[in-house]
Amino acid sequence: MSFYVQFLGTGSALPTARQHPTSQYIFCQNRHFLMDCGEATQIQLRIRKVKIQKLDAIFISHLHGDHYFGLVGLLSSMHLLGRKKPIAIYGPELLQKIVRLQLEIAGARLAYDLIFQHIADDFEGVVYEDNVIKVSTFKLKHKIPTHGFVFREKEKERSLLVEKFKTSGLSIQQIPDLKRGKDVVDEKGERHSFKKYTRKPKPRFSYAFCSDTAYSKNTIKWIKGVDVLYHEATFTKKDKERSVQTKHSTATEAATVAKEAEVGRLYFGHLSARYDNANQHLLEARAIFPESFEAVEGDVVKL
Amino acid sequence: MSFYVQFLGTGSALPTARQHPTSQYIFCQNRHFLMDCGEATQIQLRIRKVKIQKLDAIFISHLHGDHYFGLVGLLSSMHLLGRKKPIAIYGPELLQKIVRLQLEIAGARLAYDLIFQHIADDFEGVVYEDNVIKVSTFKLKHKIPTHGFVFREKEKERSLLVEKFKTSGLSIQQIPDLKRGKDVVDEKGERHSFKKYTRKPKPRFSYAFCSDTAYSKNTIKWIKGVDVLYHEATFTKKDKERSVQTKHSTATEAATVAKEAEVGRLYFGHLSARYDNANQHLLEARAIFPESFEAVEGDVVKL
Repeated sequence: MSFYVQFLGTGSALPTARQHPTSQYIFCQNRHFLMDCGEATQIQLRIRKVKIQKLDAIFISHLHGDHYFGLVGLLSSMHLLGRKKPIAIYGPELLQKIVRLQLEIAGARLAYDLIFQHIADDFEGVVYEDNVIKVSTFKLKHKIPTHGFVFREKEKERSLLVEKFKTSGLSIQQIPDLKRGKDVVDEKGERHSFKKYTRKPKPRFSYAFCSDTAYSKNTIKWIKGVDVLYHEATFTKKDKERSVQTKHSTATEAATVAKEAEVGRLYFGHLSARYDNANQHLLEARAIFPESFEAVEGDVVKL
Repeated sequence: MSFYVQFLGTGSALPTARQHPTSQYIFCQNRHFLMDCGEATQIQLRIRKVKIQKLDAIFISHLHGDHYFGLVGLLSSMHLLGRKKPIAIYGPELLQKIVRLQLEIAGARLAYDLIFQHIADDFEGVVYEDNVIKVSTFKLKHKIPTHGFVFREKEKERSLLVEKFKTSGLSIQQIPDLKRGKDVVDEKGERHSFKKYTRKPKPRFSYAFCSDTAYSKNTIKWIKGVDVLYHEATFTKKDKERSVQTKHSTATEAATVAKEAEVGRLYFGHLSARYDNANQHLLEARAIFPESFEAVEGDVVKL
């Protein structure tokens, strides 16, 4: 699997014995990301056997405790486990203040660098980009400034047909051009079509994360056409009033976002502790968007 | 059981899939105390079915994260669960700053009062006292200011022998005196010995908590004769050097404290994640103090 998401915590503000606060591990072509870091995330990472020292970046959606109270503990453990590699942390500016204060009071000096990348309350756009993936952030609608994130793989290179290439008389310096879809010319001046020596690239995938938020039209354009959408669905219809008060979504609203954004599949989570199971959420979501599923802790979603 | 301790987290700084950071629930004659509050304590409390809304006071030994990172999450959950009753928090002054900063940033206004009782770095003495119990604190020897705590039940009243009292001709207003061990005089002027109408009081018990600390002579006088001592034993003899560097104890040192303080039983915990089990700790401790046991998560120790 070159791109997958593993749900570590799918509960809401009030953790229960069966549901932990929000956290997800996102693996994409050897990049290791953590999305939110609620209390006990480090324990969930261990239980799920995710190698925490490999994490490259952590994204924090907002500063409600159930989305970041596990961060400083995780950072401390990385230090105790001998981490030297820096880690990037994307989130609101005040996050840095809290983390540094807690480390300072504990007399802890980390043996690796924390690189804080502040996401301003009103910012929307690319926050991370490398050769293979681009991560953008956008505003959600919650009680405090909150951001969603979308992970989009970049166009992949065409794959080389090795056996055919070997008999072509072309030099290995010409492989990058072929892979990028450019025709090349050999020593004799003969033109070779890239199509002869490469096959079309593997498909590229995309994933979006939206928690916590009321229904927001703005989200649609940012997550348009993603393969998998995680969207919170804290409530069902009968608690619609409570969802308005707390600026959360119902399962119906999550499914409406999925439908309007024409995503592939919807996984919903962040269910209020008042529900014993997700049956009603599932009914309501599937009535609008059939490819709706409950985000279950430990489950891996392959893109 | 009128006095017991339940271990919620017995691990050290680095939590593992099987061991959580430090936390203990202490129940004494309907008082509900929490001792330290490492990450995920609220989840452990739920798993162990401790009623978190009943907690009267929380004691924090020091500001290393594995002893308090679960506090603000627990306080938030108490609010979400509808708590109105104030809670007292005993710990270093900076604890208040951290907790209030995190609540403020989250825009959270608790519907109950947090009553912070600062324990100055050099303070030793009584921090809590009511009709039935007295809690004292004393300095431990660690890398940052750290306190131990000792819970001592007060002298209990004698129990009334109801049937004998009924035939005595004494008035019920005289019961308190009898229970306190005072003889009384009836209407005819006849003297009655309290021994005739009461039996001797139930024994009173005591519990001491010492984590994290190097061996400290000072501890002995504060915990003298307690029925049960919890003392950290992060290391075994072969890692003695590491214990000196980190100002932690070996199992031998924990047992030495237990022996010198003439306690009833020793429970040791806070074992470094480097050990797969407590076998070696147990051997080393019992060689010095036979009544040594491993503190196991979930276990209840009756006093």
